[in-house]
Amino acid sequence: MPRTSQVLLDNRPSAEAQASNFKMDTSDTAPLQPGQVLVRHHFLSLDPYMRGRMNDSKNYAAPQALGAVMIGGTAGEVVESQSPKFAPGDKVVGMGGWQQYSVVGADEPGALRKVDTRQVPLSYYLGAVGMPGVTAWYGLTQIIKPQTGQTVVVSAATGAVGSAFAALAKARGCRAVGIAGGPDKCRYAVAELGFDACVDYKLHPDAASLSAALQQACPSGVDGYFENVGGMVLDAMLPRMNDFGRIAVCGMIAGYEGRPTPISYPALILRSRLRVEGFIVSEHMDIWPTALKELAELVASGKLKPRESVADGLDSAVEAFLGLLKGRNFGKQIVKLV
Amino acid sequence: MPRTSQVLLDNRPSAEAQASNFKMDTSDTAPLQPGQVLVRHHFLSLDPYMRGRMNDSKNYAAPQALGAVMIGGTAGEVVESQSPKFAPGDKVVGMGGWQQYSVVGADEPGALRKVDTRQVPLSYYLGAVGMPGVTAWYGLTQIIKPQTGQTVVVSAATGAVGSAFAALAKARGCRAVGIAGGPDKCRYAVAELGFDACVDYKLHPDAASLSAALQQACPSGVDGYFENVGGMVLDAMLPRMNDFGRIAVCGMIAGYEGRPTPISYPALILRSRLRVEGFIVSEHMDIWPTALKELAELVASGKLKPRESVADGLDSAVEAFLGLLKGRNFGKQIVKLV
Repeated sequence: MPRTSQVLLDNRPSAEAQASNFKMDTSDTAPLQPGQVLVRHHFLSLDPYMRGRMNDSKNYAAPQALGAVMIGGTAGEVVESQSPKFAPGDKVVGMGGWQQYSVVGADEPGALRKVDTRQVPLSYYLGAVGMPGVTAWYGLTQIIKPQTGQTVVVSAATGAVGSAFAALAKARGCRAVGIAGGPDKCRYAVAELGFDACVDYKLHPDAASLSAALQQACPSGVDGYFENVGGMVLDAMLPRMNDFGRIAVCGMIAGYEGRPTPISYPALILRSRLRVEGFIVSEHMDIWPTALKELAELVASGKLKPRESVADGLDSAVEAFLGLLKGRNFGKQIVKLV
Repeated sequence: MPRTSQVLLDNRPSAEAQASNFKMDTSDTAPLQPGQVLVRHHFLSLDPYMRGRMNDSKNYAAPQALGAVMIGGTAGEVVESQSPKFAPGDKVVGMGGWQQYSVVGADEPGALRKVDTRQVPLSYYLGAVGMPGVTAWYGLTQIIKPQTGQTVVVSAATGAVGSAFAALAKARGCRAVGIAGGPDKCRYAVAELGFDACVDYKLHPDAASLSAALQQACPSGVDGYFENVGGMVLDAMLPRMNDFGRIAVCGMIAGYEGRPTPISYPALILRSRLRVEGFIVSEHMDIWPTALKELAELVASGKLKPRESVADGLDSAVEAFLGLLKGRNFGKQIVKLV
């Protein structure tokens, strides 16, 4: 069995995550038991939710164990199989973690899924046609539920969730407006991802200034907002919400680093009769097949052209992850392992 | 036609509302036109929402006009009628404002409603069997939607909304927990209103301390919270919410006086997958008949025994209203005019 390089969580961050919170290691992969499959990871997914798992606090999921391989989505190829469900050469996605290989019980529900790479590149199953894409689908169709012609906004617009959100919103006849950091991302959001407008939050020193820019980009107000970041951006959005607007809360990346990020004027929830709803997409597995089907079709037809930010090799995973938390990635952040 | 004493809004508050924002006046009531009714007000309702109308800012309703009679719900008796729908002696509720008499167009939808005072005292139609009662009904049954055995919490527990909330929650087999200010209110909430427990927020200097007391009162966590106050109380509640909890946002009285009251840890909305929803009961007229029927039955059967805080005469309305904003009332605040 091959040896596998791994990234372990060594200690928990007290505020901002640091490279010193992680440790590289190497171990032998265990021999396969009946029903198990050995997967060689081609790509590792890096996602903001991982920062939450590094804390030892109340969360929707158990904290990442110290000394264990960091959790994470992986896409790869079966290299050895003791299961009738998988054969060597099968392209698969799973939760193999920050390492080169994983041994997976093929019968565990949701542990490993075969994917078709004829029209959708393998790595996209970690982004647009994977968990982030389904996240956008759930927030848009199950919480925001926009009507044709309504305006919907997403923060972190050029990320994996944001780009899927744009394509899904345009497919429903909505005005889609993004919020992103920097002129390159904003140009890209409009030129390549199909956003009708994109607001550069880095141009604005405070929520009032950002809110004024959002008002220009959303002349009819905002009916649905998909929240990926929290903090100043959420404060800027609240006054823009139309009556009976919906806010799908998917992430509060601004608060992951230990600093609480208050909502300054929650009375707007009452004044505008908003619905604000948090969700975790992994708790809604029933909608995944429907969502993945639409997302794969959008990719195949060229209507969803996700951008990837590719780090090379497991050694670069930690740096790429810390950059992701600071918004330095441009598109879905993955690590190429093969 | 009789002369009517009135309270006008003279100028808008810059921060806390003051007695000097109001002005007493007297005017003749206009002679009745066909279709109109002259109502003598027996009771005037004082409610927190009126503070919001005093501002000249974005709100769900138009601001109260300067120099005009303060808006407000009234219960009284028809003394003269030019409408076939009403006869002198009819007991009615309407929105007559802070004055002794009003002339009402009987055909305006929702302007005037005849009520039955055989089993329900007239003044209760301003509270438990009126807008505040329906507010409690809507938040509980349409947003919180509790299951039998779940725990629901309401702030301003001994007020008009809170006391109706308790009776409605107990009728659905819930554990009902109140939050109120002072030992008298808390004792009353449990002894008379049917709450299973009541937490005195005045004993707690900060949200963490109040939150710990709420944890004791809600050993199984909180499934639904009816928000009447905002501020520190909301901060204390958020960590107590169970996964998939619902928060019905009806009032943010803590923020009415011009001070914004932030939500300190909105990331809890995501972590606990909460739904936070603001509502205005007057936008849901379709549910009023159902709600009023249940509320009247609860009063008639003695299961809802609302307490009233009665100010005597129109001259005392301003002081009573300013006291209401500071939580000095104990029970539904009304002004007795006759």
